[in-house]
Amino acid sequence: MGSLLIQKALIIPLDHVQREKNWFSGDIAVENGVIKEIGTDLAVKYPNFEILAGQDTLVLPGLVNCHTHAAMTLFRSYADDLPLMEWLSKKIWPLEAHLKAEDVYWATMLSILEMIKSGTTTFADMYFFMDQVAQAAADSGIRACLARGLAGSGNSAEVGLQESEELVKQWQGGADGRITCMLGPHAPYTCPPEYLKRVMQLADRLGVGLHIHLAETLTEVNDITKQYGLRPVELMESIGLFDNRHVLAAHCVHLSDVEMDILVKRRVGIAHNPESNMKLASGIAPVPQLLKKGALVGLGTDGASSNNNLDMFEEMRSCAFLHKVSTLDPTNLPAQQALEMAADRGAKVLGLERLGSIQSGYKADLILLDLHQPHLIPLHDPVANVVYAAHSSDVKTVIIDGKIVMKDRRMLTMDEERILYEAAKHGQDLVKRI
Amino acid sequence: MGSLLIQKALIIPLDHVQREKNWFSGDIAVENGVIKEIGTDLAVKYPNFEILAGQDTLVLPGLVNCHTHAAMTLFRSYADDLPLMEWLSKKIWPLEAHLKAEDVYWATMLSILEMIKSGTTTFADMYFFMDQVAQAAADSGIRACLARGLAGSGNSAEVGLQESEELVKQWQGGADGRITCMLGPHAPYTCPPEYLKRVMQLADRLGVGLHIHLAETLTEVNDITKQYGLRPVELMESIGLFDNRHVLAAHCVHLSDVEMDILVKRRVGIAHNPESNMKLASGIAPVPQLLKKGALVGLGTDGASSNNNLDMFEEMRSCAFLHKVSTLDPTNLPAQQALEMAADRGAKVLGLERLGSIQSGYKADLILLDLHQPHLIPLHDPVANVVYAAHSSDVKTVIIDGKIVMKDRRMLTMDEERILYEAAKHGQDLVKRI
Repeated sequence: MGSLLIQKALIIPLDHVQREKNWFSGDIAVENGVIKEIGTDLAVKYPNFEILAGQDTLVLPGLVNCHTHAAMTLFRSYADDLPLMEWLSKKIWPLEAHLKAEDVYWATMLSILEMIKSGTTTFADMYFFMDQVAQAAADSGIRACLARGLAGSGNSAEVGLQESEELVKQWQGGADGRITCMLGPHAPYTCPPEYLKRVMQLADRLGVGLHIHLAETLTEVNDITKQYGLRPVELMESIGLFDNRHVLAAHCVHLSDVEMDILVKRRVGIAHNPESNMKLASGIAPVPQLLKKGALVGLGTDGASSNNNLDMFEEMRSCAFLHKVSTLDPTNLPAQQALEMAADRGAKVLGLERLGSIQSGYKADLILLDLHQPHLIPLHDPVANVVYAAHSSDVKTVIIDGKIVMKDRRMLTMDEERILYEAAKHGQDLVKRI
Repeated sequence: MGSLLIQKALIIPLDHVQREKNWFSGDIAVENGVIKEIGTDLAVKYPNFEILAGQDTLVLPGLVNCHTHAAMTLFRSYADDLPLMEWLSKKIWPLEAHLKAEDVYWATMLSILEMIKSGTTTFADMYFFMDQVAQAAADSGIRACLARGLAGSGNSAEVGLQESEELVKQWQGGADGRITCMLGPHAPYTCPPEYLKRVMQLADRLGVGLHIHLAETLTEVNDITKQYGLRPVELMESIGLFDNRHVLAAHCVHLSDVEMDILVKRRVGIAHNPESNMKLASGIAPVPQLLKKGALVGLGTDGASSNNNLDMFEEMRSCAFLHKVSTLDPTNLPAQQALEMAADRGAKVLGLERLGSIQSGYKADLILLDLHQPHLIPLHDPVANVVYAAHSSDVKTVIIDGKIVMKDRRMLTMDEERILYEAAKHGQDLVKRI
């Protein structure tokens, strides 16, 4: 693993150290996958480190995509602007029924390529053929938090549990520690309490957390309330889902005050997916309220079929804009907060430690932005420029686990041409299959 | 003016011709600033035309930014996340008071550079030092619809009218016809009816339309209603603002049913600015309702200080997403509609003819996107990919008035390095001046 020295760059550390400004100029030394030191004139101290010149460069922690279904890039723009159930039952599920392992591998490679090129260095995934997803993460150099999606009915209920156990046993801590695993009970409406209890037992036995969709739509809230007399988060609390284990809950759009308090008290990691919630018209999550209560909220893109890209820069901007207008208060979700949700808070939402900010001893997941762009000039406030003005294509260089995976927009760990070719082919073939 | 042949490209024409799909493959021949022919194998017919190879290329009409204050890029990220009046009175107005002509020139050049690089080929501007803005439009090759902002109080009220007349006399039809002019009465709350009537008289005498901010905030609606007993659009109707002249009304966020009907009946061009309305927490314009009533609605970015970029791809996406979630109906604002708002409808909103779609005899304002990108694969639906997945940086080549202004992301008509340098310098100097 190389030793790197980023020299004379502008740094937004997200380290929560009190300073006059949320950014400063300096050098960053990286060794053995870890940020070794942040300072000035570090070249004297580390003369043999590979130098990355920091001129016109802004360094940020790599972004953390807290919720996606990476392989759904294969369905990108296949079906849009439809009512939710028609979209799922007539378009998405028929495609998913025809997916093969190889489709998932190439679709995930495409997603990882897109994510790295847009500054994402860690993603949390829930899907199936997860050994393929793990292999893609291992092959590409990205950091991933993987869960096999589980539904409590049909024979996939048992297969899913088996495959989940195999995934954890084979991949937990894999790819030099870049891969962590969770169990992935899909949602309260697809996993009844008895099944969820089995999932919880398995998670505890394997020592992993849970990744679940929760309170995404009003239909879900109404159906669950009708069936169980409790709202979704209340139901999860009643069966002990949040007891002594890390839970990553995606969406959390429709929440009562009581439910918000449960999520805060239980330190549940919430993956907020503003663009997916907007595009599917699911609703607007009460993020400013959650943040005021002290909830742990990160950002995710959800799958590409409800987004339709995996761009965390857009997600930050949409998050800030949506909550300003929905509360009619422009002081809500300031730029710094949106950026924290996309990086250090996101890492905490996934339960990952020493990740998501630029501090000595933290994992060296770093992205370098090219500031020499018309839309980033002038540079009155780098944080506001990142959240409100930057394009993901401004990311020029990406470092994950101390290793350069993209340099000056050229991929070093992935065969970009092969991936674009294979993904396009698998996408076309899949549509012909149904 | 060169003759161009775009060969074997994917074309989204926005020409409202009934076809099975909203896109097709073909060639486009351009001569004397106009689209001459759309067909296949046109090279035989036009052997001497300069060829642009269309492999992996999507051709769209150039995008039309219906409302901005271009020079405000100089304030980009200078002040954000503040209550509206504090933002204006403590941050923006003090900066504007110190602006010099040269600042406006370089700031506008920066904006034009940003706009062209993100696929915008026409913009409607309202600001001051408008001769500088016109000069920048002339120098750069962009198409512009320019209005000197007018306020009805203080001695700038008279100066503004004089400068407006000078602008129209000097620049109407200027820069090979790329520049058109309007008068720019700022808003009902800054221009009382008596002043507006003088503006209307001048506009009629000069034969130009009007560009005005209308019904942007609840404060405006409440203040105007209190003062005049009419809501803003009603007040404008009562003084005859919409009589026999083209009016471009920016924002139109807070509208009664009666006001919507007035805007529809009077064929007022509405510039919807979703990102500015979101960021400033102004509110959500009733765009789906307006469209159902048959209103003429285009898209704008507003100034960079409330956005904070001039990216029409983001604006299309935000428009579609915002109105899906605000109505809880994912079928609202489908991709095709958002794209039309950003192009051919936008041209109509500005009152510009034979612009905004790819048809023989139309002005040759065309943008070429590079489809060979991870976030644009697969290509199940090019329109959805453009609106929901594309980045503005996918724009590789831009043609305005039949002339290539950017080729493979290299500017041919502007000195990019000089502009970045001057704009950064003027931005820094301006802040020091206050």
